[in-house]
Amino acid sequence: MMMGDDVENGNLGPYLDRPRTFPNMRSKPYTPLIFRILRGINVRVLVILLFLGFGYVFYIGASTSPIIVFVFSVCIVSFLLSIYLTKWVLSKDEGPPEMAQISEAIRDGAEGFFKTQYGTISKMAVLLALVILSIYLFRNTTPQQESSGLGRATSACITVAAFLLGALCSGVAGYVGMWVSVRANVRVSSAARRSAREALQIAVRAGGFSALVVVGMAVIGIAILYATFYVWLGVDSPGSMKVTDLPLLLVGYGFGASFVALFAQLGGGIYTKAADVGADLVGKVEQGIPEDDPRNPAVIADLVGDNVGDCAARGADLFESIAAEIISAMILGGTMAQHCKIEDPSGFILFPLVVHSFDLVVSSIGILSIRGTRDSNVKVPLEDPMTILQKGYSVTIILAVLTFFGSTRWLLYTEQAPSAWLNFSLCGLVGIITAYVFVWITKYYTDYKHEPVRTLALSSSTGHGTNIIAGVSLGLESTAIPVLVISVSIISAFWLGHTSGLVDETGSPTGGLFGTAVATMGMLSTAAYILTMDMFGPIADNAGGIVEMSQQPESVREITDVLDAVGNTTKATTKGFAIGSAALASFLLFSAYMDEVSSFAREPFKQVDIAIPEVFIGGLLGSMLIFLFSAWACAAVGRTAQEVVKEVRRQFIERPGIMDYKEKPDYGRCVAIVASASLREMIKPGALAIVSPIVVGFLFRVLGHYTGHPLLGAKVVAALLMFATVSGILMALFLNTAGGAWDNAKKFIETGALGGKGSESHKAAITGDTVGDPFKDTVGPSLHVLIKMLATITLVMAPVFL
Amino acid sequence: MMMGDDVENGNLGPYLDRPRTFPNMRSKPYTPLIFRILRGINVRVLVILLFLGFGYVFYIGASTSPIIVFVFSVCIVSFLLSIYLTKWVLSKDEGPPEMAQISEAIRDGAEGFFKTQYGTISKMAVLLALVILSIYLFRNTTPQQESSGLGRATSACITVAAFLLGALCSGVAGYVGMWVSVRANVRVSSAARRSAREALQIAVRAGGFSALVVVGMAVIGIAILYATFYVWLGVDSPGSMKVTDLPLLLVGYGFGASFVALFAQLGGGIYTKAADVGADLVGKVEQGIPEDDPRNPAVIADLVGDNVGDCAARGADLFESIAAEIISAMILGGTMAQHCKIEDPSGFILFPLVVHSFDLVVSSIGILSIRGTRDSNVKVPLEDPMTILQKGYSVTIILAVLTFFGSTRWLLYTEQAPSAWLNFSLCGLVGIITAYVFVWITKYYTDYKHEPVRTLALSSSTGHGTNIIAGVSLGLESTAIPVLVISVSIISAFWLGHTSGLVDETGSPTGGLFGTAVATMGMLSTAAYILTMDMFGPIADNAGGIVEMSQQPESVREITDVLDAVGNTTKATTKGFAIGSAALASFLLFSAYMDEVSSFAREPFKQVDIAIPEVFIGGLLGSMLIFLFSAWACAAVGRTAQEVVKEVRRQFIERPGIMDYKEKPDYGRCVAIVASASLREMIKPGALAIVSPIVVGFLFRVLGHYTGHPLLGAKVVAALLMFATVSGILMALFLNTAGGAWDNAKKFIETGALGGKGSESHKAAITGDTVGDPFKDTVGPSLHVLIKMLATITLVMAPVFL
Repeated sequence: MMMGDDVENGNLGPYLDRPRTFPNMRSKPYTPLIFRILRGINVRVLVILLFLGFGYVFYIGASTSPIIVFVFSVCIVSFLLSIYLTKWVLSKDEGPPEMAQISEAIRDGAEGFFKTQYGTISKMAVLLALVILSIYLFRNTTPQQESSGLGRATSACITVAAFLLGALCSGVAGYVGMWVSVRANVRVSSAARRSAREALQIAVRAGGFSALVVVGMAVIGIAILYATFYVWLGVDSPGSMKVTDLPLLLVGYGFGASFVALFAQLGGGIYTKAADVGADLVGKVEQGIPEDDPRNPAVIADLVGDNVGDCAARGADLFESIAAEIISAMILGGTMAQHCKIEDPSGFILFPLVVHSFDLVVSSIGILSIRGTRDSNVKVPLEDPMTILQKGYSVTIILAVLTFFGSTRWLLYTEQAPSAWLNFSLCGLVGIITAYVFVWITKYYTDYKHEPVRTLALSSSTGHGTNIIAGVSLGLESTAIPVLVISVSIISAFWLGHTSGLVDETGSPTGGLFGTAVATMGMLSTAAYILTMDMFGPIADNAGGIVEMSQQPESVREITDVLDAVGNTTKATTKGFAIGSAALASFLLFSAYMDEVSSFAREPFKQVDIAIPEVFIGGLLGSMLIFLFSAWACAAVGRTAQEVVKEVRRQFIERPGIMDYKEKPDYGRCVAIVASASLREMIKPGALAIVSPIVVGFLFRVLGHYTGHPLLGAKVVAALLMFATVSGILMALFLNTAGGAWDNAKKFIETGALGGKGSESHKAAITGDTVGDPFKDTVGPSLHVLIKMLATITLVMAPVFL
Repeated sequence: MMMGDDVENGNLGPYLDRPRTFPNMRSKPYTPLIFRILRGINVRVLVILLFLGFGYVFYIGASTSPIIVFVFSVCIVSFLLSIYLTKWVLSKDEGPPEMAQISEAIRDGAEGFFKTQYGTISKMAVLLALVILSIYLFRNTTPQQESSGLGRATSACITVAAFLLGALCSGVAGYVGMWVSVRANVRVSSAARRSAREALQIAVRAGGFSALVVVGMAVIGIAILYATFYVWLGVDSPGSMKVTDLPLLLVGYGFGASFVALFAQLGGGIYTKAADVGADLVGKVEQGIPEDDPRNPAVIADLVGDNVGDCAARGADLFESIAAEIISAMILGGTMAQHCKIEDPSGFILFPLVVHSFDLVVSSIGILSIRGTRDSNVKVPLEDPMTILQKGYSVTIILAVLTFFGSTRWLLYTEQAPSAWLNFSLCGLVGIITAYVFVWITKYYTDYKHEPVRTLALSSSTGHGTNIIAGVSLGLESTAIPVLVISVSIISAFWLGHTSGLVDETGSPTGGLFGTAVATMGMLSTAAYILTMDMFGPIADNAGGIVEMSQQPESVREITDVLDAVGNTTKATTKGFAIGSAALASFLLFSAYMDEVSSFAREPFKQVDIAIPEVFIGGLLGSMLIFLFSAWACAAVGRTAQEVVKEVRRQFIERPGIMDYKEKPDYGRCVAIVASASLREMIKPGALAIVSPIVVGFLFRVLGHYTGHPLLGAKVVAALLMFATVSGILMALFLNTAGGAWDNAKKFIETGALGGKGSESHKAAITGDTVGDPFKDTVGPSLHVLIKMLATITLVMAPVFL
């Protein structure tokens, strides 16, 4: 059903006005092409096709390695589990019609935006694919390629195909995240009328569904590509490619994933925060109506934003994290195995895939461990949902440690260094601990149970200005401990790897970088559960909005409010996790980049010496890129929010009956304004991120050519990458934490502290929250993606710099 | 006279209350020890001492090089000129008694704070001197030292003496800046009753006085040290030190200067902005009284802040910039001359001193070119003071280009490469152009004549939140073009130097780094004039405050308002200049650091390879240091401002008569609160900046020792330095520009745009201005100093890392 009509026939008051029509928003519920084709096919044909697909997958898997077969099996089982979860969620009732109608309006808005957004993204992806194709058709071949008889055309096709597959999978990951959240939100609202525990369970299982799909797809996508290339190129047969060089062919997949994730995060992030800020500025501040009040014309746009900004974008973000991390770890594993002349290197190469397969298993157990009460109709005293979620996390993390030790013993045991596997499992432990500490630090700085947020709240009592100053300094300060933690974990993982006993031909220890890679895998070894907790946030937020809009009794609101508060905390803490893993993954991607350049340039590329002026300038430009990108992303939210503010103000002036529920606000117009503005605004920062490393690398390549400085372009780009990563990590930490702290300082005041709701302190705190919104939900998360995208783009575009 | 009494007997209304006493603030007007001693001496003795001093200076100068004699002469002439200027300023009248009384209150507050602040700083300096002494007594000697017979004890004494002299000179530079500004402010106010032009002239000449003293002292201090060491160590005689190694002995001077500058800027910056923010939050926002209204209890503290924060601190800041730049350029010049085996290297080494001597000459001409009208009693139509100042700047810059070409021809001509001097003068031109472009860019982003500030003002109309978001994104965006400009100028100066024809023993070109050094000198070749314009700002600001407080007629206020507005612009633009020169100077100091390490470690130290995990982590820590330092400096202002807010609110509540001029506010208490809080708060960020590079260097030195990685500590510190510089430049640009833009957006609205004063837009703009205050006047300028301090501390502390 179409959105305008839904709301119109709804139960929101005696509305008379007919909303204007906005083609994009009034289209049929959107189903991606691939689903429509699947639906159009006869069920029998479908089953046959599926079996053929499975058959192919297992055939190539079996031809490659038993490990691949294991990975395939786990992925397929977890897809089946995710189908069970989604069926379970969808079997829940949608509540009274007024809830369902609001939910449908949200769904239509989200799907309409998704369609337009991914339409734009896919056009850009195709364009970029053509660029990559032409670059690779003219690039020099590497010695490895020559020895394996891999021609330019084949190599170009492989990269482009991997890129497109990565982009497609990333898009599907985003879609799946949003698809389930727009359906689960109303079911959570409805369940909240019965029991808090049931509502929690639905939200968790809905989040779990998309988490399993996202992680599973990242793993199976890479596994299929790997196995296909393995079989197709006849790897390891005489005269063809060595298996240790195979992972380098996968970089296109990582780039495709991060390319889509960047635009998904930018567009979605701008959408959600522009709607939120715009709605709050007029609704809360000027008119004094509560959040999610049905009288606010921007309220539907705000709820749509949670889905497209948080669910879809975070799905794409973590998909990309995992993909980038798997690929870079495979490259490093391959390189190391080659240097150490390990007989069967496949264990080292395929290790990341196995770790993430176990991630699927242990996270599933964690998700399923969160149960509703036996009889969901009996109301039990409200248990703190955070405790329940953390119990599940504890289960997951304990199992993850055990399976991690198991997999290192299975795959990383080698007779050359019998105790290496133990060192590497300790590296994994370092990563797991790092993840845990990161989550804890983020919580310390953003939860109002702790000192920092309380000090921030206190500074609101002296005005808007001091609130902002205090928030900025809190955010800047919060970068310190995470950086120390990352430093310690990189160094300790490096040294654990270094002393693992693995040595290269010359006898020097060589496992250091692989050690940091294993730590990164350890950090991401509970990614599916983390993603579940993250997805839980926007679903709970939406459920709260639906409850508020459909004017449910106070007791129901209380339940969704508690869930929403927990969701805010999980959202904030998972950001800490995301940035920590991005930091480690980028560090791996540098090394992969240097390997790649060495192999193309046919000379060792081991140093990035920032004492060379040009290289230093590359670094300066890299840091500047982060600042400029943040500026543009931030300005985009500001501009779009101003459009929303003007529209909402206009509606309140032109339809004075809105405030007395006598007139109906035009939700559709706000949705349309935000959608078109955020799509327009995502282009500039996105293009900056993609174009600038290529331009800088190319310019300095030319400069190096004229000044007799070989590899200058590649070195400058490496410095750009490293400085951008460092600045990006710090900036993202700053923005995420400041935003989260402002949000919770406001919530703290709303609990009645410092004058409570409506006081001057509260107004100042709302200003802080408004400023923090784009920080934490647009710019910060976009920076996570950006730094990994920079690393993958330099990998794929390396031929331009040489 | 004591402060409280001054105000009490004044003419500010029928005040009855006696202010509480605060010992620090009620002390006698403070005169530094050195002046008191001088005053106590009989005039004849003084004259004899002076002549002896001159005689010594010229004797050692003549024994060293005719260039040194030239430098001495110019410095002494410019000191004489500065005495003329100060006599001229002091001969002006102080206006009616109410003006003089306010001025005395400001003077007492400023001198009281200065005394306590520099007391604290000098204790820390002595402590640090002891640390340096003990480190140098246990350090290894360098081959150069051995060959010249320079023992450990001598080397330690030299470094410590240089450090203490640098610290002392930096302190005096700060004092001089403040001394004249607290005397000129009231004279400008008084002159404003007669003629705008005369007021402008007084402010310029007062600024000129301290600028000449600051620059002259930096130059003569280094020249005296250089000549003394030259004569004392018998340089260039057989078996003793080579002249090309001499500049390395001067690094202590640079460190002393930057050490004092850091704390001066931190303490002063916290003072001025805490008072300003506190006064504005209650006065402007809550009570709705204008800025500098005598009813505001924090108004005197605010006016004191301009002097201690802007005048004293900026004096120390630029003193330190010039000192650091001269020393690093001398080191690089010496190293290059040695590599190129130039017969008489003194031209290359002493070049920076000559450039700054000419700076004194051309800036004096520029300052003197700004004249009052013939008959100052005839009121002429108000000319735009900005135009007058810019005319003076044009004169200065044209002369600077000419003298720069002249000095390169004089000193850098060598028969080995006859056209090298031309290349180097082009490098200087690059620097001058860079300075000009930096000033222009800052103006573009902070002046409300241009697009960015107007957009920012527009965003105030949608609320506090959107104003802050827009300001943050404006500030972040404004980093881009300066970085591109710096990049282009470093590369072009490097290549101009590289292709100058100077080659080392192996025949490879070697003038690149010296080229960037010359560009830095070019940038700073009009430093004295720039500093004059910078000092002009706070003097005009203070004059406006005095006019407002003594309730002069509207026409006088108009004149000081115009001067104040111009002062804001010059303050903002000179910050662009300061950060640009800091960027270039730090780049030189790296190179000097690497030279220093090479010479101690007795092995080449040419590379800082960030592909090594530990080195990369050093970089990460360096960037984090900038964020943490900014956080703490920012929080310090916030906390201190909150104390002021509480005190001002308390006074308004306890003395309800203040608002009707029936009761007198207790100014002294606000002054005392701000003073003690800002002294307390400056310690934490300052200590962080000093301790962290030493700790990091030492830890990694130990780690390197156990892991068999020589020079690891030095490399990690180098990376820390470079990443901190890059992040520091970007952060400072962001903070300075955002702050300036918010300030001017508010001023733009106050001209009547977007609803004008009192509108909702104006309130939002005031919030932005409040946030911007600590950004642009505390954290930003402290970062300028910090990045140079980091570079000098690593130079001096290098033995700890080896």
